[in-house]
Amino acid sequence: MIEFWKMHGAGNDFIVVDGEKYCIQDYSDFAKKVCHRHFGIGADGLLIVKKSDKVDCKMIYYNSDGSRAKMCGNGLRCFCKFVYDKKIVNKDIFKVETLDGIKDVKLNLNGDKIESIKINMGKAKFDSNCVPVKTDKNMFINEDIFVVDKNIKISSLLVGVPHTVVFVDKIDKEELLKYGSEIEKNSIFPEKTNVNFVEVLDKENILVSTWERGCGYTLACGTGICASVAMAYYLNKTSNKVKAISEGGELLIEIIDDYIYMQGSAVKICQGILEG
Amino acid sequence: MIEFWKMHGAGNDFIVVDGEKYCIQDYSDFAKKVCHRHFGIGADGLLIVKKSDKVDCKMIYYNSDGSRAKMCGNGLRCFCKFVYDKKIVNKDIFKVETLDGIKDVKLNLNGDKIESIKINMGKAKFDSNCVPVKTDKNMFINEDIFVVDKNIKISSLLVGVPHTVVFVDKIDKEELLKYGSEIEKNSIFPEKTNVNFVEVLDKENILVSTWERGCGYTLACGTGICASVAMAYYLNKTSNKVKAISEGGELLIEIIDDYIYMQGSAVKICQGILEG
Repeated sequence: MIEFWKMHGAGNDFIVVDGEKYCIQDYSDFAKKVCHRHFGIGADGLLIVKKSDKVDCKMIYYNSDGSRAKMCGNGLRCFCKFVYDKKIVNKDIFKVETLDGIKDVKLNLNGDKIESIKINMGKAKFDSNCVPVKTDKNMFINEDIFVVDKNIKISSLLVGVPHTVVFVDKIDKEELLKYGSEIEKNSIFPEKTNVNFVEVLDKENILVSTWERGCGYTLACGTGICASVAMAYYLNKTSNKVKAISEGGELLIEIIDDYIYMQGSAVKICQGILEG
Repeated sequence: MIEFWKMHGAGNDFIVVDGEKYCIQDYSDFAKKVCHRHFGIGADGLLIVKKSDKVDCKMIYYNSDGSRAKMCGNGLRCFCKFVYDKKIVNKDIFKVETLDGIKDVKLNLNGDKIESIKINMGKAKFDSNCVPVKTDKNMFINEDIFVVDKNIKISSLLVGVPHTVVFVDKIDKEELLKYGSEIEKNSIFPEKTNVNFVEVLDKENILVSTWERGCGYTLACGTGICASVAMAYYLNKTSNKVKAISEGGELLIEIIDDYIYMQGSAVKICQGILEG
């Protein structure tokens, strides 16, 4: 009888469980089971709350397919709301240990209610070896590659996970589905890549549509939105403070001294008890 | 703060709510909200338990898209487990009112635990006007229609909702996806039709794969399996007692005096409280 919350951040949904309260033998197997959309509760991933030796708490994240991931931006906001609302962490500024390092969190409170959550997502890495992308150039920005039936200009960077940004005049989901999966698997990306189609509306507003590595199209991708703004700002297409809108919701991204700050909401859908 | 159970029957998943305990203004709107896979709990449909003026209880069923449906075989088994386990109905033989009429239910108990649930799904109707199918023939059985790129032999009947059965040598999901949606929308079916691809293994065992009207491919369809066995038995391809296997699970179907008895399990996944 394990207690859980189901939550979402910009339409990216998660099962959250207090890993100190319940002994779960195999997180990967548990994630596959509870995240299954028909036989389980259903979610994109599983967030486990653990104690940290170093900071306030530790987030362990598994995808719905049972694979472990280093980080998940939308998941981390949900994690932060869970630990604050459940009084596991009793402050509005705290640190969370993830496989991608320590993340600084600031809750914007209205009384005791979280209005939004701001997270320092770290710096983007533009170095080709970091992304990684196989090229003899130091950076892989505004480069033409041939995909399916045409040349597409892409720009790659690392924000926790490999991301590729394609600036388009108008976001077209069909186009993302058609070219996204092919860019993801292009041989120049030894660890594959997420693919973000970005439409710049003006200096302060962009639309982002993401094809996630191993998942396909999702309603929103936290790191993808961070990567999109980092690249847009780097190329001077936007200012350093941008509202990014995805199908699942919107995030406010700010870049200060190269650090990417992601601000957005986290929503509790329900709480419950798993059977069996 | 509405209590719910999430359940599944052969992989067909449902949110179940006691409609006598909670006042829900708009079931259609509520179904769309709670059944949403990312912003809600996520399910194929919503089952509401209500009192009946005539029999033991009443099932109100809404699809995830907010449309009301007359009946749902896998849903009805989940409904029966809910009302028995929650002690809304305190007997092992009872009747449920649905938009498709009164359904007779028999629980197979092991102590107080439900092992399986047997439901009299009523008689199949083979009359063309009942299905309905536009034809000058009384019945539409083993008829060739041209679909996409070839002739396909189809047989249509009504089991609560319109069903069409296609007997195949080997079930191929790609073929179902390709031809199912086209058969569904064929102009000879004024109310459209569900489409069941059926592979007869032997007289007592069949495989069924269903394309659901308005939904697409599903892990299992209760009325589709009943319709498949009814047609297979009518055409003497099977005996009157058949185990039907779908991707989501299996059902035992028995035909006695033209009545179709569906027997299978219902699984509670979790119980919880909706936020907001």
